[in-house]
Formats: sequence, structure tokens, C-alpha cells
Amino acid sequence: MMKPRLNVVKIGGNIIERPGELNRFLGLFAHLEGPKILVHGGGKRATDVEKRLGIQSEYVDGRRITRGESLEVMIMVYAGLINKKITASLQARKCNAIGLSGADGGAILAYKRPVSQVDFGYVGDVEQINTQTIEQLLQARLTPVFCALTHDGSGQIFNTNADTIASELAIGMSKIYETSLLYCFEKKGVLMDASDENSVISHIDKTRFEELVEKRIISDGMIPKLQNCFHALDSNVSKISIGNIEMFTPGAQHFTSITR
Amino acid sequence: MMKPRLNVVKIGGNIIERPGELNRFLGLFAHLEGPKILVHGGGKRATDVEKRLGIQSEYVDGRRITRGESLEVMIMVYAGLINKKITASLQARKCNAIGLSGADGGAILAYKRPVSQVDFGYVGDVEQINTQTIEQLLQARLTPVFCALTHDGSGQIFNTNADTIASELAIGMSKIYETSLLYCFEKKGVLMDASDENSVISHIDKTRFEELVEKRIISDGMIPKLQNCFHALDSNVSKISIGNIEMFTPGAQHFTSITR
Repeated sequence: MMKPRLNVVKIGGNIIERPGELNRFLGLFAHLEGPKILVHGGGKRATDVEKRLGIQSEYVDGRRITRGESLEVMIMVYAGLINKKITASLQARKCNAIGLSGADGGAILAYKRPVSQVDFGYVGDVEQINTQTIEQLLQARLTPVFCALTHDGSGQIFNTNADTIASELAIGMSKIYETSLLYCFEKKGVLMDASDENSVISHIDKTRFEELVEKRIISDGMIPKLQNCFHALDSNVSKISIGNIEMFTPGAQHFTSITR
Repeated sequence: MMKPRLNVVKIGGNIIERPGELNRFLGLFAHLEGPKILVHGGGKRATDVEKRLGIQSEYVDGRRITRGESLEVMIMVYAGLINKKITASLQARKCNAIGLSGADGGAILAYKRPVSQVDFGYVGDVEQINTQTIEQLLQARLTPVFCALTHDGSGQIFNTNADTIASELAIGMSKIYETSLLYCFEKKGVLMDASDENSVISHIDKTRFEELVEKRIISDGMIPKLQNCFHALDSNVSKISIGNIEMFTPGAQHFTSITR
């Protein structure tokens, strides 16, 4: 029997920061047919609130360290402000959204990232997706909206990378669904030339990826993002697309599709 | 056919402020048998965060006015910090909690409180409980944990009194369940003498209530609280209890039960 389809969509922090773009995205997302899950980040807003509260954000090699007070701010901003605003906006668009953290319904179990050279603090790596509970929500025709928080099952909440949450959800749900993973950010896709918005690479597979890394066309943050994609494709996710909001309009052509 | 039982429990802000008491409560709540719903407030913490952010809390006659920035803080503190910490703690106690605002799953629809002498700002009065979605969650053996926020179905989130949310949930779910409503706060119950913690009135019905109001034994905030109770009892809620945490221990005797 053919599995039903499921779309797992992740929106980046830069879209969340721009109300016009966010609204346009939410309108398009609400109209996506069939079961779907939304995952959002929201880093900048948390940093703003930290500043206003006089909490120093800590970084090592450009990666955020999450201390106790920072974690509280993340819980407030991710699970509170951003998650509930998105949920209420989707409800207004007749999409029956339910905003969740990984602690809710025990949806996403994680463990504290092991300390090697750096102790990232309350940062969690995903251990297990509770597919049963998520499936019950989807069966009730609800649309889960996940923020980038997980829990350890013993009462500790963690900050977890939103890209990873999206790919782990897509992997976990692929037991039941033919899952597509869509990464929506501010650019049209993976670019050949970072300074040319229109130089979208329409298709990347593993061989092409290695070539592009070698030529330094793909670098920095895009490398782990794409590695994450290949891991998902190797773990039964059917289809991955990277692009901007226009990716969700009918007949969209300008985005990057990733295959094994 | 007899309806199954459902407990709707509301915990007050003063319990949330005391980690030891909150933990003890959550342990007892996790062990309550059968389907259950938790509702929490959390006013003080929101006021603290407002202060730290330099936002002035506004009050008229001791009642909070909710402006735009105050609402954002409430969404952060109620739906974020407090709701997720309670949810993660219940998960650690093997209670499959799912933290929600009234916007999630369209659970609690409200309208802006009409402006008469005072404009309370973003304060919502409950219009409708989405019993179907809440029932689907309970059927999935989830325990909904509601914070004191609702939505208008058009994208606006409101601050709504947590006592009212609890009673409206109990009323709404009484279509399907025999519902009990339990108000848990820092006192042992409704007191004959405010200065004597042990002067608990064990039973109040409408006649007794009127007598006690006339004698000024019941006054101030307790009056609307009890009026709220009688409204719930008149609307098919089976049983109401008011007391402190000890109310949830086996064989508890010292609390106030309210009947018509």
C-alpha cells in the first residue's frame, strides 16, 4: 500500500523577523494540502530579549552557548511569543495549528550534547521522535507547529537546532508517511554565486555536493545544512527542497532540490 | 450510560512561585487517575519580567490592563516559561502532558472584553470551548495543560482569567464527561476567619454563600470566584472543590466543597 504524503516545513529566523514575509508564508503554508508539520527557529528575537534583560549572549566559534538564563529566554521567545503568534495566525487562516515544544506530548526526546572541547550548555541532540503521539495529532487533523526546543524526559528542556528538529521529524514520520522536507529561508536556494540571488543550483546530489564543497562554492553554514539533508535522504525521507517563500506558490521553479 | 469522569484542576500563581510546593503539586497531579486537565495562571512572574524590561504594569481598581507589550510578556511567560516547565516536569513524572494556549487547536475562542468604563486592553472573555479537539487529545491519553491565554480566531491572542478558563473548560467538557473542578491555591479552603488558617468552611451552597457575603465573611476576590463556581454548577459541572495542595492527598478532609 502506498504511504500517504507528509510535508515537514522549516522556516528560518530571517523570515520570522519580517512580518510581511511571515504573513505571506503563513498564508501559503495554510493552503498546503494534506498533513503537514511546521518547524520554526527564532534566534534573533531571543537575542533582543536577552539584551533588554541585560543577559550576555555567549558564542564560541559563532555557535551559541546556552546557559540557564539564556535557556529561560529561549523558552519564553521560541515556545511563547513566536510559537503562539504563528499558531494564532494559522488558526485565523483556517489551518488547525497546535503549537508545541519537544516536551509537549513527549514529542522529541533529546540528550545534552556531550562536552568535548566546548560545553554548549543546555543544548540537546535529538534521541527519539515520538511518532505515535505526532501521528495521533495528525489523525485529529491538527497541524503541529514545533519550536526549536526538546526535553530529556527528566524535566530538562534543551535548545536544539531547528534544521535538525525538522529533519529528525521527517525521518521519524517516514515510518508512516512518504515525507518531504522543505527548508524555507530568505534565499531562492543554494547559490552558485553568493552575490547573485538568481544563480540557484536547481539540483544537488552527493557527488555534486562534494564537487561544490571542493570548489568552495558551498561553504560555512551551508555544509552542515546539506549534510543534514543527505542524512535525512539516507534515512527514508523522500524529497528535500531548499528555497524561499516562492517555493510554495503553484508552478514554482526556482529552488534547490536535493537527492541522494 | 454513565459518563466517564474528568478532573479539571486550576493552580494559582502563589503555588507556581514556590518551587517546592509546585513540585509537590505536580507529583500529586501526575498520580490523579483518569482523564484530567490542568490550568495555570502566573501573574507575578509576568510582572517581574515586565519590570526587568522596563514596561510599566497598569492596573485599574486592582485589575490588570493588558497593553501590547504587556501581552507579549504574558505570552512569553504564561505560554512559554511556565507552561513548558510544568509540561516538562509532568513528562518526567510519566504524565503525558501537552502544554497549550487557547489558540492551540483552536481550543478556546474568546472575544475582546467590551469597553464600558474601563478598556482592559487585550483581555478576552470566553466565547466557546472546542470540546472536539480537547476530547481528541484526551482520547490520545494526553493531559492538556492550559495557560491563561485565549484567541479570537482572527489571529489576536488575549489574556483571560485562569479561574474562568478552568470553569469554562469544565462546563464545555461536561457534555462528554462528569466533570469535577478543583481550585488549588495557597489556603486550605474558604475561611470563616481570614486570620485563622484552620477555619475552613467545609461546605458552601448558594444559600450559605448569600449569608456569608451578607455577614462579610466572604468578600473581595472570593466573591467572583464563588459566583464563577455557582455558574459552573448551574451549567452541568458535577462537583467543585477549593483548597490547597493537600486536597490531592488520599483521605483529604480540609477543603471547601461547593454545591448548588
